[in-house]
Amino acid sequence: MTNPEVEVELAPLRALVLEQGNLVRELKSNGASEIDIKKAVAELKLRKKILEDRELELTPNVVTFDRARMEDLLKRRFFYDQSFAIYGGITGQYDFGPMGCALKSNILSLWRQFFSLEEQMLEVDCSILTPEPVLKASGHVDRFADLMVKDAETGECFRLDHLIKNALEKLSKDKNATREIKSECEDIVVKLDGMNKAEMAEILNKYKIKSPLTGNDLTEPIEFNLMFATQIGPTGLVKGFLRPETAQGIFVNFKRLLEFNQGKLPFAVAQIGNSFRNEISPRSGLIRVREFTMAEIEHFCDPNQKDHPKFDYVAETRMTLYSACNQMDGNSARQVTIEEAVKSGLVANQTLGYYMARIHQFLLTIGIKSECLRFRQHMSNEMAHYACDCWDAECLTSYGWVECVGCADRSAYDLSQHMAATGVRLVAEKRLPTPKVVSVSEVVPNKQILGKLFRKDAKIIIDALAKLTLDDIKTVGDQLNETSEYSLTIADGNTFILPADTISVKNTNKTVHVEEIIPSVVEPSFGIGRIMYALLEQNFQCRDGDEQRCYFTLPSVVAPLKCSILPLSNNAEFQPFIRKLSQALTKVELSHKVDDSSGSIGRRYARTDEIAIPFGITVDFDTLKKPHTVTLRDRNTMKQVRIDISEVIEVVKELSVGRMQWSEILTKYPLFEQQEVTK
Amino acid sequence: MTNPEVEVELAPLRALVLEQGNLVRELKSNGASEIDIKKAVAELKLRKKILEDRELELTPNVVTFDRARMEDLLKRRFFYDQSFAIYGGITGQYDFGPMGCALKSNILSLWRQFFSLEEQMLEVDCSILTPEPVLKASGHVDRFADLMVKDAETGECFRLDHLIKNALEKLSKDKNATREIKSECEDIVVKLDGMNKAEMAEILNKYKIKSPLTGNDLTEPIEFNLMFATQIGPTGLVKGFLRPETAQGIFVNFKRLLEFNQGKLPFAVAQIGNSFRNEISPRSGLIRVREFTMAEIEHFCDPNQKDHPKFDYVAETRMTLYSACNQMDGNSARQVTIEEAVKSGLVANQTLGYYMARIHQFLLTIGIKSECLRFRQHMSNEMAHYACDCWDAECLTSYGWVECVGCADRSAYDLSQHMAATGVRLVAEKRLPTPKVVSVSEVVPNKQILGKLFRKDAKIIIDALAKLTLDDIKTVGDQLNETSEYSLTIADGNTFILPADTISVKNTNKTVHVEEIIPSVVEPSFGIGRIMYALLEQNFQCRDGDEQRCYFTLPSVVAPLKCSILPLSNNAEFQPFIRKLSQALTKVELSHKVDDSSGSIGRRYARTDEIAIPFGITVDFDTLKKPHTVTLRDRNTMKQVRIDISEVIEVVKELSVGRMQWSEILTKYPLFEQQEVTK
Repeated sequence: MTNPEVEVELAPLRALVLEQGNLVRELKSNGASEIDIKKAVAELKLRKKILEDRELELTPNVVTFDRARMEDLLKRRFFYDQSFAIYGGITGQYDFGPMGCALKSNILSLWRQFFSLEEQMLEVDCSILTPEPVLKASGHVDRFADLMVKDAETGECFRLDHLIKNALEKLSKDKNATREIKSECEDIVVKLDGMNKAEMAEILNKYKIKSPLTGNDLTEPIEFNLMFATQIGPTGLVKGFLRPETAQGIFVNFKRLLEFNQGKLPFAVAQIGNSFRNEISPRSGLIRVREFTMAEIEHFCDPNQKDHPKFDYVAETRMTLYSACNQMDGNSARQVTIEEAVKSGLVANQTLGYYMARIHQFLLTIGIKSECLRFRQHMSNEMAHYACDCWDAECLTSYGWVECVGCADRSAYDLSQHMAATGVRLVAEKRLPTPKVVSVSEVVPNKQILGKLFRKDAKIIIDALAKLTLDDIKTVGDQLNETSEYSLTIADGNTFILPADTISVKNTNKTVHVEEIIPSVVEPSFGIGRIMYALLEQNFQCRDGDEQRCYFTLPSVVAPLKCSILPLSNNAEFQPFIRKLSQALTKVELSHKVDDSSGSIGRRYARTDEIAIPFGITVDFDTLKKPHTVTLRDRNTMKQVRIDISEVIEVVKELSVGRMQWSEILTKYPLFEQQEVTK
Repeated sequence: MTNPEVEVELAPLRALVLEQGNLVRELKSNGASEIDIKKAVAELKLRKKILEDRELELTPNVVTFDRARMEDLLKRRFFYDQSFAIYGGITGQYDFGPMGCALKSNILSLWRQFFSLEEQMLEVDCSILTPEPVLKASGHVDRFADLMVKDAETGECFRLDHLIKNALEKLSKDKNATREIKSECEDIVVKLDGMNKAEMAEILNKYKIKSPLTGNDLTEPIEFNLMFATQIGPTGLVKGFLRPETAQGIFVNFKRLLEFNQGKLPFAVAQIGNSFRNEISPRSGLIRVREFTMAEIEHFCDPNQKDHPKFDYVAETRMTLYSACNQMDGNSARQVTIEEAVKSGLVANQTLGYYMARIHQFLLTIGIKSECLRFRQHMSNEMAHYACDCWDAECLTSYGWVECVGCADRSAYDLSQHMAATGVRLVAEKRLPTPKVVSVSEVVPNKQILGKLFRKDAKIIIDALAKLTLDDIKTVGDQLNETSEYSLTIADGNTFILPADTISVKNTNKTVHVEEIIPSVVEPSFGIGRIMYALLEQNFQCRDGDEQRCYFTLPSVVAPLKCSILPLSNNAEFQPFIRKLSQALTKVELSHKVDDSSGSIGRRYARTDEIAIPFGITVDFDTLKKPHTVTLRDRNTMKQVRIDISEVIEVVKELSVGRMQWSEILTKYPLFEQQEVTK
């Protein structure tokens, strides 16, 4: 990846990143104020972006790639296209046509084989419609939002940070702007990333910012939650959302899954399904959409035991890692084996490392190019507060490096949140090396008296008492001793005064053989649409000397169709052979396409290349003679061999599942030398 | 299916249905009033129900089936369970656990093979979130609704027809009710099915019906649309729904799909995906839910050419058909070949018949019992107004006969609707036997003058002119002749007066070689959850003499896991064999489960039976000796054979994909006679 000439160009930009990275470190170690650190981090990000943009400009395949040409092909051959186009279309929603759908379904079935089956994961399929309390506990109701303002008259929406940035940049570029104004504006733009709603509202007012399209007044800032809201059931009282990720469905089923696994840790759960995010302004094709398919794994393990029994199998996997440290220093990504990365502590533990290596292997198998794949570590300021290490598998596209798979150690965050919200103990039992004696405190309610005193509230009180923590129970004891009553405040804010005869605190000693632990979760999360997009881009090619003839070099294992069957012409004698070949391919479950339309054979080959069909069987006049033979063509090299009709199906099957390579075919069968005619 | 003793019991009930069926026919042929026909049909339905209920009571397997026991097993081994249970759960939503998810995914992948691959269908994957105009055109916004009322104070919801029915039945049973009141109430109950909102509101008022739970007042009747509504994008202006069926995604992509098929008819499009219906009160487990997976096929064909090239392959398929005529006459369903059914005109055409036969074959392949499967024809009064014939594949369960697959000839309805709504021509071209000359009329706008006169409205006017029908164009010509202007009313109701110099009508003759046709659609539509439920029920068994040991006789092709591997005990010497067997099964892509937990071998067999694992390999002390052998066990017969460890994987593979039967195994390998110990 590194080229000395390119490095000379990049050296000064790398130095600028390093300088700023060091400043951030210094501020942090000196305990500088939060706003100063944020400002420095914003500048660091800016410098990183300048470095990365320049790096990409100097990358040859990014320079030559013609996105418009590829998009035209994807549309024309209906890999995918905008949904509801005859109704004007909806941005951020796509329909997958026959080729896109087959590609997606092949990727998913390989994923199942590669992850679920290989690791004997528990695969689940959970509801999409999710009631509010679940997403309240997960943090999505409160935090999964962007700030926006609306044009007070037209209702047009703007993302608030983008709006302020554009307005102030315009202001500071105005020729009448004083130096003071300029520096004030620049200062705000740098700090925007860390500002809250009130601070941004103040800036709107101070600079009298109006709607950029109409000049109309703007509304106050609104927190726009990115989840699609709806109501479940007819009452209008049960608020629900379309899930923004599939993971929560797994966490809420943790108890059932642990039980299914006979109570044992570690185990992994997989789920493939759709999620939804109501983006304010979706763009970049399949990369930022409102409806998307994810494949997620939640690997539950003992927080103190994150080694992985199969780590040795992947230890030698060589990967491109772009550590947080390298990012702060302006260095480029480095190639290391995952074993070195885990040993040196760069990757937090074996389980995380194991999954990173498996993700790497999976992406290469489906056709991602190794030179266009890196794992980037989240820097401490971009990591979710609950994660202890997080690496994104990023694929290089014409949009830059795009996050396609996230791989995070989420610690015990999610299970703890749902446990706190429901009172259900989402824990596993771990056998202690030696039994131990513990003192147990519990509040024992006198149900009869409570029932008489509090009637229908008695149940609420008893439930609340059962949820008290050890500290709470100590308080109960103390209060009862001092005042002969205990004042219990429940979740909805109501308070009940419980006289001494209604409850008592019981302390006992108990010998325990197990301890309860909340498992840690390692989560590899695949964005299938993004992976597909990167895969298509990285496999898009045009024939040398004929830019009009484009094709995709997708590996046969994921190619939408495995084989084409083409009669050389519309001679009726070819038909029985075509029919038999088609039936034989169906029998061995190979998807294929017969193209008996008019048009030269070369033109029809070009059509099959466009939809990435890796192999093509042609029936010609020699086929009619005995022994019956056909030609077999390879998409990537356009080479053909002559092969007996009785053998060809088995050969295509072996090639398609990857048990045989085209190079072997060339050594076994005679080359068929006929010029392809393009027109 | 027929049993003389049972028939004696049923004869009088059949006679009552026949009598009423004849009455309905007579009323219709005499042109009786709509309300009289409705009343007679309601009575017919009632009598049919009494007949069917009695028929089911006399069916032996329905009598012995223990639903509670099966549901307990499904929950305990997490086939599926209520979603979000730790949050109190949501009715009508289910999560599929590892076993349910694997079963579902096996059914779907077999479906793909059986339909998509075999017929070379175009499979698509369309958006779930659907903007309002699409579902307005399809009729769902206006008609996909139930009437309900709310308790004015608590907000509790009631389906209006159920509420009135219950209230009036109670009223007429009251001991003070006069004969007049009684007969009035009964009359209303019979007519309810055909009443509109205003009529029902009147009844609410007349009988002063209150909330049955609280006695509170009720709101006015509300049309409750069964679609989940949400907003797409941040403005709140784009109303959208979760799709209530997957079919519309295919129709709106018709042009792209026709083009993909190079303009040729017929072709079929398949889609597997989730749909959503906000049921007012979901119940009956998986049978009526709010979120469900469908697999739908839309087969587009020439309306005048509905024969099917592969019909001969299925002609001999013998199926149980329950025709509309048999239903009206009180007769039972009849077994006929699909060839007879199409020839006699009972099934409308070959294409519909072909799909019915394929659905039949598919359901038997996955394990539906032929004696518990019938195809019921919709009677004319229950058929959607656009369909020309419709048959439901119904599976017998403890809930009665449940519709699992619909198979309808939808004619050109959907494409016509979307064409009318968008102005996009959703048609195919059909070559004429001989070219013909047609006169063509079009309105030619003078864009320059229109632009000057109407400015920004000019485009709207020109677009509207292009959409005028032949009749409209004739009117334009007439108006221009008479008044020298034309008054154009556009979709939003605005009217523009167009002077004679802005438009002219051009009539020309044109030789055409093709005609445009709107294709007919034959739609097989599979409810995957319902099929799964029926499949589980029909395959649920308990061991003779041990009612506690339940199992599912699912065919291996859909069984969640194909094989178990059990060490006889926890002897460490077994471990290397277990590991090798597991790796070998993974290599040939066979899902399996190692159960090395403590517990007797019999108990562990019982556990694997519960999750329907068809084959089990046991490693015992003889395995340690050379030549290494294991035992292989069949779930259904509980028989075991002794087999060489080097052969067992291949044998299990052959058994699992159905290339070999257990009966063959018994002839090839020595029986292993060891008593299973249950405890």
